[in-house]
Amino acid sequence: MTKKIAILGASGYTGAELARIIATHPGMEIVALSGDRKAGQAMGDVFPHLRHLGLPDLQKIEEIDFSNVDLAFCALPHATSQAVIAELPRDLKIVDLSADFRLRDPAAYEKWYGKPHSALEIQKEAVYGLTEFYRDEIRGARLVAGTGCNAAAGQYAIRPLIEAGVIDFDEIVIDLKAGVSGAGRSLKENLLHAELSGGTHPYSAGGAHRHLGEFDQEFSLLAGRDVRVQFTPHLMPFNRGILATVYVRGEPAQIHAALTARYADETFLEVLPFGALPSTRSIAGSNFVHVGVIGDRLPGRAVVIVALDNLCKGSSGQAIQNANLMLGLEETEGLMLAPVFP
Amino acid sequence: MTKKIAILGASGYTGAELARIIATHPGMEIVALSGDRKAGQAMGDVFPHLRHLGLPDLQKIEEIDFSNVDLAFCALPHATSQAVIAELPRDLKIVDLSADFRLRDPAAYEKWYGKPHSALEIQKEAVYGLTEFYRDEIRGARLVAGTGCNAAAGQYAIRPLIEAGVIDFDEIVIDLKAGVSGAGRSLKENLLHAELSGGTHPYSAGGAHRHLGEFDQEFSLLAGRDVRVQFTPHLMPFNRGILATVYVRGEPAQIHAALTARYADETFLEVLPFGALPSTRSIAGSNFVHVGVIGDRLPGRAVVIVALDNLCKGSSGQAIQNANLMLGLEETEGLMLAPVFP
Amino acid sequence: MTKKIAILGASGYTGAELARIIATHPGMEIVALSGDRKAGQAMGDVFPHLRHLGLPDLQKIEEIDFSNVDLAFCALPHATSQAVIAELPRDLKIVDLSADFRLRDPAAYEKWYGKPHSALEIQKEAVYGLTEFYRDEIRGARLVAGTGCNAAAGQYAIRPLIEAGVIDFDEIVIDLKAGVSGAGRSLKENLLHAELSGGTHPYSAGGAHRHLGEFDQEFSLLAGRDVRVQFTPHLMPFNRGILATVYVRGEPAQIHAALTARYADETFLEVLPFGALPSTRSIAGSNFVHVGVIGDRLPGRAVVIVALDNLCKGSSGQAIQNANLMLGLEETEGLMLAPVFP
Amino acid sequence: MTKKIAILGASGYTGAELARIIATHPGMEIVALSGDRKAGQAMGDVFPHLRHLGLPDLQKIEEIDFSNVDLAFCALPHATSQAVIAELPRDLKIVDLSADFRLRDPAAYEKWYGKPHSALEIQKEAVYGLTEFYRDEIRGARLVAGTGCNAAAGQYAIRPLIEAGVIDFDEIVIDLKAGVSGAGRSLKENLLHAELSGGTHPYSAGGAHRHLGEFDQEFSLLAGRDVRVQFTPHLMPFNRGILATVYVRGEPAQIHAALTARYADETFLEVLPFGALPSTRSIAGSNFVHVGVIGDRLPGRAVVIVALDNLCKGSSGQAIQNANLMLGLEETEGLMLAPVFP
Repeated sequence: MTKKIAILGASGYTGAELARIIATHPGMEIVALSGDRKAGQAMGDVFPHLRHLGLPDLQKIEEIDFSNVDLAFCALPHATSQAVIAELPRDLKIVDLSADFRLRDPAAYEKWYGKPHSALEIQKEAVYGLTEFYRDEIRGARLVAGTGCNAAAGQYAIRPLIEAGVIDFDEIVIDLKAGVSGAGRSLKENLLHAELSGGTHPYSAGGAHRHLGEFDQEFSLLAGRDVRVQFTPHLMPFNRGILATVYVRGEPAQIHAALTARYADETFLEVLPFGALPSTRSIAGSNFVHVGVIGDRLPGRAVVIVALDNLCKGSSGQAIQNANLMLGLEETEGLMLAPVFP
Repeated sequence: MTKKIAILGASGYTGAELARIIATHPGMEIVALSGDRKAGQAMGDVFPHLRHLGLPDLQKIEEIDFSNVDLAFCALPHATSQAVIAELPRDLKIVDLSADFRLRDPAAYEKWYGKPHSALEIQKEAVYGLTEFYRDEIRGARLVAGTGCNAAAGQYAIRPLIEAGVIDFDEIVIDLKAGVSGAGRSLKENLLHAELSGGTHPYSAGGAHRHLGEFDQEFSLLAGRDVRVQFTPHLMPFNRGILATVYVRGEPAQIHAALTARYADETFLEVLPFGALPSTRSIAGSNFVHVGVIGDRLPGRAVVIVALDNLCKGSSGQAIQNANLMLGLEETEGLMLAPVFP
Repeated sequence: MTKKIAILGASGYTGAELARIIATHPGMEIVALSGDRKAGQAMGDVFPHLRHLGLPDLQKIEEIDFSNVDLAFCALPHATSQAVIAELPRDLKIVDLSADFRLRDPAAYEKWYGKPHSALEIQKEAVYGLTEFYRDEIRGARLVAGTGCNAAAGQYAIRPLIEAGVIDFDEIVIDLKAGVSGAGRSLKENLLHAELSGGTHPYSAGGAHRHLGEFDQEFSLLAGRDVRVQFTPHLMPFNRGILATVYVRGEPAQIHAALTARYADETFLEVLPFGALPSTRSIAGSNFVHVGVIGDRLPGRAVVIVALDNLCKGSSGQAIQNANLMLGLEETEGLMLAPVFP
Repeated sequence: MTKKIAILGASGYTGAELARIIATHPGMEIVALSGDRKAGQAMGDVFPHLRHLGLPDLQKIEEIDFSNVDLAFCALPHATSQAVIAELPRDLKIVDLSADFRLRDPAAYEKWYGKPHSALEIQKEAVYGLTEFYRDEIRGARLVAGTGCNAAAGQYAIRPLIEAGVIDFDEIVIDLKAGVSGAGRSLKENLLHAELSGGTHPYSAGGAHRHLGEFDQEFSLLAGRDVRVQFTPHLMPFNRGILATVYVRGEPAQIHAALTARYADETFLEVLPFGALPSTRSIAGSNFVHVGVIGDRLPGRAVVIVALDNLCKGSSGQAIQNANLMLGLEETEGLMLAPVFP
């Protein structure tokens, strides 16, 4: 029997991506969509590429009857999400795509997001949503906190290397190239085509990007000590895709072996042959992750490169992968869509 | 039981698009791939976005055992295709994506393609592959000739209007905007990113584009008299999508009604409300077609706009739709993939 | 002696383009910049590409001392411009880049812009700014109304053909492809990179685009009778450039001859050899216009294609060309910048 | 009196960029253009954006009369250049834009370029063309070797820091984002729009990129000891611009001060306020370089970001700057063109 799905915040890009994937997911059916500012509109007017799906109109959240819903995706803005989720039925399964439940430490949340968390009780229930590393907890969770898209990319490169102890924990630099859809559908001057196309620039450099909160939490937990990485994101003139170029210290062959071993049984993680270099074009539109390793001419240094689709594997695809687990479906169901190239 | 599929010419974009769609098609399985210049290579090296699929390596055509093949897609260059198909088993079902079997009249073929056809006997078997208009013939065909991508876009706008007799047959102008993947993976200076991005230009203007052969053939056949359209294609700085802006004479409301009626039962054809304007972004990556109609301020004139994905509905998606019919599968099987936006 | 220039509305794209050109204009010097919402900011913060110029900070208009100004460019939004200009000194030379003073007939203004004009007295002074056709009037004008960028492109194709009487005035279709910078720096969802890149769509189709007011006025005046064209603009996924594909009826050779003759002495107008097709890439960043003519396979039909840079020749470059005339400078001074390719 | 200029290899992008800049250079005049494969063609056919300039037709090099030439720019492919220059008159001033004369050590040349140098005598004359650091030698040189575009970007970030001794010479990582025009006009599959647009990937990673030869040579010379950097270039889906994100160890404020002091009197080098981040969009189309510095949250680490236009300041603009010095012209003459944005 198909599971009944609600998407809260369906008028943004991650909401649309959820709907796109569920369109051909045999085990899920969308029964409700919310979009506060666009409540009352047809989904096909908000996103004409979904018009053939006959989706429900956008509603206000309070109009939705959750008794009929098996799982809700919350694709709401940060801070809004915690307020909304606090009002939802306590037994409703939820995958939250915002940043609100990613950080376990309330002080860390306050540091990175600038205000106290308003739903700390619920935070305690939340499981961090990096599927390949929290699979068992996710299966039994009521609330899963989707990871940051950049945070996912960095962790796919680094976690196995910390686990295997094959790199220097104090010498990690993540230079990241992020497609613009990660910034959402918000009206900002720097997101206009005329401003963004045809060039690139760094942003939130020097340690200011909020996804560092996730890196700090996860890497330190794994390492059993504080780990602090350097992280410089760059805004890219394309819509989908993240490329993380990660500079590490260690034996390149060991590094490649550690990643290969860790991901050997993972459907969505593809470790390329040693020396092969990933491209975001090869994963766009899909839930797949490409991981490459190359040794540097300087001994004891390697570069790990990860490519994933920020909207799919970095956000909505990950969310559905987690929902599959929470709902007792096959983990990969609906997610085997091949990347779209060219 | 899944049908066994061969793709001849799998190293080009339409070949890759076939493989992308078949990746999640429940009724088809790829058993052989050819790519002459790249024979011996793994498909995942030629197209890294397909590396997770575990596809067969590229072979030379003569190395393929067709006894095990239910249907072959020929995604070969024009002229090559007719030579290759002439050598294939006579009972093999074939969908040809080249231009070689589209034109029924040998003189027309020679006029538009500059040399005599070398496989006229086989040409007689071929059914023109515009599914919605040749469905019955396709179902029983051994050889289906896929349409030109631009030819498909123009026909979706105009055929129902000729059928309904609601436009002036002598006053049709097709101004078409074509994504660059339609030009294939060939190494031409004008297809380089540095040459193509950031601007647009017309090409094959004034009546020189080969897809006019299809327009002439199909519209004249429908009208029962010669119909000659004006056609100006423009090369667009994006990869996927065709937008055809078609200027016609007739009552706009009648024109909209004729299109709406004709496509009412067609899964992949979406006629927008009167006055709504399609965008290529709303169909990219999918087999859907959006059709819009608006009346002009000048009485008796209307503009019909059609958007489709040249690689999918204009080529490989159409081919699979036809193959589904030829193989006794559900026509829409594997083709319900939603468009990818943004 | 260099002329003292003020730019009102310098925080938008046409304002920035004025500053870019004047940066190497030997006869002009910028002495004041206004930008209401950004008053107080350094121009190099608003537009970092201009930071090396040491330009004055943005002010409020009322803070500018116009006694020291030889000419003001008004790059303000439509409707704002007429209110501002009404308050400026009556002897100040002005080139207005808005739509406010383009239409001579108050009823036409009200029809296309939705409200009555508030400065009709000043309107009477205004000269229409299509330099090559109003050169003498512009030389003596106090107030010049810059043309619409699309309106300029269409007129460069059609005016000489009306003058020479070589086309059918009732059969003119302009299918136009417009770079997105023409929409300005405003925060609209459809102008976001994620929405706009990778595809195209028509807008203001069917006779709704305001630049039709200019076409109607100018073509009817030239022809001595009402002329009404069809006009469909399409938004393009690139920043600079307009390509107008104009379908006309007449002898192609005569049409080419009429354009060649008319523009023989014009520095910025390049008529290509018969059959050669312009590209926006060949004029981007410059004040040059490329004009091409090709005959259609249908006798008595031709296609005229015009390419120009909407920000430069379609707006700010035109404005400086006009200002040169008004200030007694060489018409081409500062404007010989070559197009930027790739 | 204007200087007579020849451009050898005028059918590539750096050749076109030289012509673009010289178009408005008051002290230079192009008297000869070569382009072997396109000899006999009009420059306006090879590059339609230059058609208004009335340039000489392309010739074969051996057809050029150099007695009338003050300076030749060689924009030829690597290896071809040394062969051609060996045959040119010995007193002809030459700026070479290829890699052929950049490396002083013949063994280094052979290592990075895979074959012995064929013109070692001439190599000895060559001055390395990074103008701001070799100005005096360039002024008196007969042959100047233009730098690699990536090499220029990295050096603008790092040279002043080595000179000032404010960074750890063994901990330098250059993560570079390179616009595609740097790859030239060659027909390679990975440079096609359909392959390149919409994503990014690293290339020549791990220490394989030839511009490392320049980094090694120049940084070691400056430091008085071997300096070896890590360098990962990424191909970007835009045409112009390089962004170098350079990770260094040292006090951020000292680093910013060293760059600010070193470039205080340099016309084309703009050091942004501490913490401000450059964008390639702000220098595209110009000879300007933007340099930014930000401190990392990890003490003792900083990121230096450099943006320049690979075709202009990284290649043809630099070449003209050097030619100005060699010809006794003002160094900045013809080069004050403002960046083109949007």
